[in-house]
Amino acid sequence: MTTTPGLLPVGLRDRLPPQAEAASRLLHRVIVAIGRNGYERVAPPLAEFEDELVGRLKSARAHDLLRVVDPISQKTLALRPDITAQAGRIAATRMAHRPRPLRLAYGGPVLKLKTTQLRPERELTQAGAELIGSDSVAAAIEVLGVAIEALETAGVTGITVDLTLPDLIETLAAGPMPLTAARLERVRERLDAKDVGALAGLEAQAYLPLVAAAGPVAPAIAKLRALDGIAVLCQRLDAVEQIVAAFAGRATITLDPTERQGFEYQSWIGFSLFGEGLSGEIGRGGSYTILHADGREEPATGFSLYIDPLVDAGLGQEPSRRVFVPLGSDPAAAAALRGEGWTTIAALSETDDPAQANCAYILTGTTPEPLQPSP
Amino acid sequence: MTTTPGLLPVGLRDRLPPQAEAASRLLHRVIVAIGRNGYERVAPPLAEFEDELVGRLKSARAHDLLRVVDPISQKTLALRPDITAQAGRIAATRMAHRPRPLRLAYGGPVLKLKTTQLRPERELTQAGAELIGSDSVAAAIEVLGVAIEALETAGVTGITVDLTLPDLIETLAAGPMPLTAARLERVRERLDAKDVGALAGLEAQAYLPLVAAAGPVAPAIAKLRALDGIAVLCQRLDAVEQIVAAFAGRATITLDPTERQGFEYQSWIGFSLFGEGLSGEIGRGGSYTILHADGREEPATGFSLYIDPLVDAGLGQEPSRRVFVPLGSDPAAAAALRGEGWTTIAALSETDDPAQANCAYILTGTTPEPLQPSP
Repeated sequence: MTTTPGLLPVGLRDRLPPQAEAASRLLHRVIVAIGRNGYERVAPPLAEFEDELVGRLKSARAHDLLRVVDPISQKTLALRPDITAQAGRIAATRMAHRPRPLRLAYGGPVLKLKTTQLRPERELTQAGAELIGSDSVAAAIEVLGVAIEALETAGVTGITVDLTLPDLIETLAAGPMPLTAARLERVRERLDAKDVGALAGLEAQAYLPLVAAAGPVAPAIAKLRALDGIAVLCQRLDAVEQIVAAFAGRATITLDPTERQGFEYQSWIGFSLFGEGLSGEIGRGGSYTILHADGREEPATGFSLYIDPLVDAGLGQEPSRRVFVPLGSDPAAAAALRGEGWTTIAALSETDDPAQANCAYILTGTTPEPLQPSP
Repeated sequence: MTTTPGLLPVGLRDRLPPQAEAASRLLHRVIVAIGRNGYERVAPPLAEFEDELVGRLKSARAHDLLRVVDPISQKTLALRPDITAQAGRIAATRMAHRPRPLRLAYGGPVLKLKTTQLRPERELTQAGAELIGSDSVAAAIEVLGVAIEALETAGVTGITVDLTLPDLIETLAAGPMPLTAARLERVRERLDAKDVGALAGLEAQAYLPLVAAAGPVAPAIAKLRALDGIAVLCQRLDAVEQIVAAFAGRATITLDPTERQGFEYQSWIGFSLFGEGLSGEIGRGGSYTILHADGREEPATGFSLYIDPLVDAGLGQEPSRRVFVPLGSDPAAAAALRGEGWTTIAALSETDDPAQANCAYILTGTTPEPLQPSP
C-alpha cells in the first residue's frame, strides 16, 4: 500500500465527472455517425509487435512509440500512437479478400512517447474512418463529408478545413517545373520552413507563386489558375473546386498547396480540421496508399478525429435528471424511470438525503416530484 | 515497410465486423445503464507509475503487469490490468472531498502480462462501478442490482450469482472457532485447495460443515443455520438472505462460504457473475476498503464486468438497414435517412453496385426502395 498521493506521469491524466462522461458520449456519437455512412467498425489491439507497427507507421510517428517489454513473446511490443496504420494492416491482411471499396471505422485510445506544446497529452482518444480501394475526388468528398458530419454530431460548429496538396511539389519537380533530386530536397526543406527568400537562391523562383497563393480557397485558386498551362496543377485545382462546391455553406475552406508537415504519407490531397472555440487541430486526413504483403499498393482515403479538444472545450456535457429514491421505494418504479432516461440515486440509509445526492427530484410513489431548493 | 503478414502477439487480437461494433455497443449500453443508477463516469489513464499502481493493486494482480519504459519520467510505467484500483485512487485523492456515498463508474481497456487457459486474452474491456463510503448490506444489494441490470441491458439472460464470504474464515478463527495464526494459514491453504481430508488432520474439523454447505443458496443457508450459536455467522447469513430476497426470480444464487480465490482483497461479501451460454465468469465484485493518504480506511462496494465474453457469445450484434445511394442522389436525402437510423452506402463510381455493397435497399428520390435479390 502506498501512502503517497496519486501522482500521474507527465502527459497522462484522469478525466473526472462531467468530462469523463462527455468524452464517452462524444466518442460514441462520432463513431455512430461514421457507422451510419457504411463504415464498419474494427478494433485492433492497444499493442503490437514493434517491428510490425513501425513498418506500417509513416513519418515521425515511428519515433513516438512507448515500448513494452513482453516476457511472453521475448519481443518488444509498442503501444499504438495511431489507429490508422492498424486499420491499414487489417485491410491488407485479414480483410484483403473483402470487396472494395472497403469502409472501416475505429475509435479508441492511443499513446505517444512525447508531449508537445500544442498537445501536452500523451494519451488521446482517436476516432476515424478509412475508405480502402479509392483515392478519387469522390472518395475525398465522401471522407471529408463523413468527418464533418461526425464533428457536427458532436456539437462542433464553425468548422474550417485546411486543404493541402502534399505530393504537388514532387509531382511538379518530376514534370512541368523540373528540379534535380538534390535540389528538390533543398527546395522541399525551404518550403517546409516557409523560407521564401531562400527559394530564389535555389533557382526555384517558379515555386514562389505556390507559396504566395496560400489562404482562403477562392483567391488561392484564382492565383494558381493564373499560372498558365500546368496540366497537373489544373487537374488538382479542378478537384479542389469540386470539394469546395460539395461543402459550400457547411465549412470554411483554405488551401495551402505547398504545406506538407504531418502529411508526409499523404498523396494528392490532405486536410486538417478545426472548429470554432476549439484548441488546435481536431482532425486530419487525406489520400494515401496501403502496401499489401505481395508488394501491391492500394489507394485509400481516410481521416482521424481527436475527441479530447472537444471534451476540453466543454462539448458533450448534458445535465442529467437526477431523482432521489428514498428507502422503501418500489424498485420497479425506479427502474421504470431509468428506462425513461432518469438517473436514480437510491438512499442507502436514513441519513442519505436528496441535497447531498445533488437531486432536484424525489420519487414519491411512482412519480418524480420536484424538490424546492432551500431558501 | 514490412512485407510480413500482420501477426499479433499472443493474447492480443483484432476485433473485426460485426464483433467490433457489438463490443462498442455493449460497452456503451452497460456504461449507460450504470450511469442511470447515479454512478458518475471517471476515466483514468491507460498507464501509471508502476509503484503507484502496484501499491493499490491487491493480490495477484501486481504480478500481472505489462511495464513500459518511459524516457520522459525516467521511471517505469505499468499498463493497468484493472480499473478498480484506479477508481479507488481517484476516490481517495482527487475526489476525497466529495460527499459520500460517492458513486463512480468506468469502462475501457485493460492489459495483462499473462494469459490463462480460461482467459487467453491479454487485452480485455472492463466496465464497472464503485460505491465509495459504504459496505453495508444495502450497498451490496444496490451494487449487485446495478451489475445485474447492466448485464440484462446487454442482453445477458439466465444470470447466476455465486456469493462468497471472503473474510469469514479469518473472522471465525479470531473468535468463535479459534485457530492460531500459524494454523489458520494452513487451514486457509487447505480450504483454498478444497482439500477437505486434510482439515481433520489440522484439528479443524469445526470448519468442515462450512465446506459441505457450498451450493444452491437455500440449502446452503439451512445447513449453516444448523451450526448453533455462532453470532457472526448468523449475521452474515441474515445479510445473504436479504440479498437473496432482493433478487428472487431475477438471478440464480449460490453460496460458497469458504471460497476466497480472486477475492483476497474483498471483506465480508464477494460475488461472481455468470450468464447462460457465456464462457466463464462475466463479472465479479464485493465489499472492500480504500486506503487514504492519511492512513484512514474507507469502506466501499463495487463490481467489474467483462464485455469480451458477451461479444464472443454473439451478443450486441444488430443488423443495420443498409441503403445504396447511387451517383447523383441528393446528399440531403441520404443525410435524412442516416438521421432515422439508416446506414447509407454512397456510390463512388458507376461501377459500384448495391449487391457488392451488401445493401437490401436503394435510394430512389428521397425514399429507400427494397431491392429484389437476384434469382
